[in-house]
Amino acid sequence: MRESSTRQPVPLPKAYRLLNHGPTVLVTSAHGGRRNVMAAAWNMALDFDPPKVAVVIDKSTVTRELVEASGKFALNVPARGIASHVLAVGRMSARELDVNIHENKFAAYGLQTFVGNDPELPHVEGCVAWLECKVIPEPHIENTYDLFLGEVTAAWADSRVFSNGHWTYDANTPSELQTLHYVAGGTFLAVADSFESHPTLINS
Amino acid sequence: MRESSTRQPVPLPKAYRLLNHGPTVLVTSAHGGRRNVMAAAWNMALDFDPPKVAVVIDKSTVTRELVEASGKFALNVPARGIASHVLAVGRMSARELDVNIHENKFAAYGLQTFVGNDPELPHVEGCVAWLECKVIPEPHIENTYDLFLGEVTAAWADSRVFSNGHWTYDANTPSELQTLHYVAGGTFLAVADSFESHPTLINS
Repeated sequence: MRESSTRQPVPLPKAYRLLNHGPTVLVTSAHGGRRNVMAAAWNMALDFDPPKVAVVIDKSTVTRELVEASGKFALNVPARGIASHVLAVGRMSARELDVNIHENKFAAYGLQTFVGNDPELPHVEGCVAWLECKVIPEPHIENTYDLFLGEVTAAWADSRVFSNGHWTYDANTPSELQTLHYVAGGTFLAVADSFESHPTLINS
Repeated sequence: MRESSTRQPVPLPKAYRLLNHGPTVLVTSAHGGRRNVMAAAWNMALDFDPPKVAVVIDKSTVTRELVEASGKFALNVPARGIASHVLAVGRMSARELDVNIHENKFAAYGLQTFVGNDPELPHVEGCVAWLECKVIPEPHIENTYDLFLGEVTAAWADSRVFSNGHWTYDANTPSELQTLHYVAGGTFLAVADSFESHPTLINS
């Protein structure tokens, strides 16, 4: 996968739009030479500027350990071309792999990575947007609900599907670039269609 | 809109699936004879069983006032058939309407409502799922981030698109029943396509 030519920075005040339509994301993390990736349908934008996000990271995951230790994570918005990898990443914990944890979840799933601004945080190729985030420490909700808040410090998107602050999906968009919206049991919904609407005031 | 024959209860442990794929929702609320509705792209599931949700409700909204006073809200998952209403609801605050606030935002937008378990909480017709929630009080994150957590106490979905715990979208689903995924500037993405995937272990 060669995407560097289509990967473009997204101005921070537009970064919320990368999550606004509710895609499933891959959460990547790194600390002390270890790296990991997990799938998370439970994520959302939380604020515009500075942009903030919220994401659920279960206590049982290696990702949780790395995020707590490093105070940072990245949200990668995967596209349909890597759906089978997203599903695999979501089903198997790094703890279940009986090889050294360093690098192995990426290698096991054939996920290629690159770095953005933070030299430690892996970004996943085959995604169409990437958001680097620093944790906003809120220990009570982290402990009680596994709920993590982050401030977005840098963002990028694939210019084939996001430009001028907007997703540009239409009938001509290759299906492998569609974002993924996980349902259950291996089934995703794909956003295949974009349409404009106009507000209606019935009684005006 | 007549939907009562297709509206079916959803078992609570499956309720998270109604939000799992990231739809934009309508937040409805009621207190002391006043009712309101607002659109919210920033929502997500937070837990399985008991099911919990998270949603951002801005301090400037009438919804915020009603939710804080009543300790409850409903999330309605609107479908494409009422996209123009969703857009209108999202753009105009009840405070901007120069008629009595009681009932008027629903009337102004031509939104029909019905009740579920809670006789006060309006549910919006033209939606394909409905979740009644009680606020889990977390004053710090409510005040700091406008972030509200809720426990789902009852849920329903339209059996034409959700059955046996799964969304059933396919090529034959009428477009007006597609869920809405808001982008910006009046543009929505519609989930038009469902597909199965299987986890891949490249190096296994």
